[in-house]
Amino acid sequence: MNLLLLDDADFVAADRVILRDRRLTHLLEVHRAESGDRLRVGRLGGQMGEGRLLRLEANEAELQVSFDQAPPAKLPLTLLLALPRPKMLRRVLQTVAAMGVPRLVLLNSYRVEKSFWQTPFLEPEAVREQLILGLEQARDTVLPEVIIEKRFKPFVEDRLPALAAGSLGLIGHPGPWPECPRALSEPVTLAIGPEGGWIPYEVDKLREAGLNPVQLGERILRVETAVTALLARLF
Amino acid sequence: MNLLLLDDADFVAADRVILRDRRLTHLLEVHRAESGDRLRVGRLGGQMGEGRLLRLEANEAELQVSFDQAPPAKLPLTLLLALPRPKMLRRVLQTVAAMGVPRLVLLNSYRVEKSFWQTPFLEPEAVREQLILGLEQARDTVLPEVIIEKRFKPFVEDRLPALAAGSLGLIGHPGPWPECPRALSEPVTLAIGPEGGWIPYEVDKLREAGLNPVQLGERILRVETAVTALLARLF
Repeated sequence: MNLLLLDDADFVAADRVILRDRRLTHLLEVHRAESGDRLRVGRLGGQMGEGRLLRLEANEAELQVSFDQAPPAKLPLTLLLALPRPKMLRRVLQTVAAMGVPRLVLLNSYRVEKSFWQTPFLEPEAVREQLILGLEQARDTVLPEVIIEKRFKPFVEDRLPALAAGSLGLIGHPGPWPECPRALSEPVTLAIGPEGGWIPYEVDKLREAGLNPVQLGERILRVETAVTALLARLF
Repeated sequence: MNLLLLDDADFVAADRVILRDRRLTHLLEVHRAESGDRLRVGRLGGQMGEGRLLRLEANEAELQVSFDQAPPAKLPLTLLLALPRPKMLRRVLQTVAAMGVPRLVLLNSYRVEKSFWQTPFLEPEAVREQLILGLEQARDTVLPEVIIEKRFKPFVEDRLPALAAGSLGLIGHPGPWPECPRALSEPVTLAIGPEGGWIPYEVDKLREAGLNPVQLGERILRVETAVTALLARLF
């Protein structure tokens, strides 16, 4: 937790917050904070600044806070991701938030096991929890938008062309494709497949929607690693 | 497991292997393989090729194998990493092997908790297990060399200058440093700090050994994400 992220419900006055949850535990057990300590704080969806610990007790912490700094810029990116397996999903959500992705579409694919859609980790509260961990890690305050699309074809045919309009459309896909471009500043729509990759039909449909395959080399990367590697290469 | 990695002990003839361990379970339960199936295989430290399943039984699989393909090239890199916490260490070892790092130095730092050095995940067999998972994921056959250095100062003063000689020395470090360079083809020695970063004394010592700080932006990344992002940016 490199940023203490505050929600509206934490505020007891314009410049005062009280914490009682996991963040209190973290202050006590990991930061081993003490009264008077100064900490980086951020207001969810808003600015970042500094907090001073007025009181730190076993069941409650009180901080005086002020905000004067904009959160870091997001990437100019819409990321389409075939729904990963539940354990990977949680880490990917953290990574996506930490790397500064503003919009994530979790999409079905032939190689996504049907059971993955049943995971409690897809509940809005569970998704939000992982995104917040990513924001706290990277020092950002703005939650990414997460869109869940359980049907590949209608999404790719009907919604994707508008979503990708005006952006460079790319599919991260192993194979004999051009190398993934580097150091872009234009908007990008990037699709990353499931373990085992998109099937040819899916690649064709994504291409019809204006996305073109690019590759990172011969090595097959786990989804989480591929997301990080592609974003670090592109921007 | 995108590559079935074979060890000398698996061979019962020059072109035959028998499997009884976790790889057998994986063939049965994840691949749901059947007799006659063809699979990608690799010989640990050697070439890659194809295997044909001759027999697949509950306690034993037999394959006929042939090898005709070199493993993918490694990166021209020595990676110095402050020892991560045990859970992160396991994933980082997989990532390092998957990304093609040929040499990893696990190093002490002021911010590495002493208890991290006690983890059973640092035992040679445990390290090898994670590296092999990374090779199987990425389709590579060559284990990275892993060097364990429990003392920062003697390593950085006495061994690092020779290890880094002839390479571009970099420290991935948040702050007002030059941007991390891109698309290098020259050899690199890259140092990545612990959670919380190298302390100023450590940065000074690394600089004396010829390494210079570079940054990836304002966002603070987890070690595993930072490793992937820096490697994807550099090469």
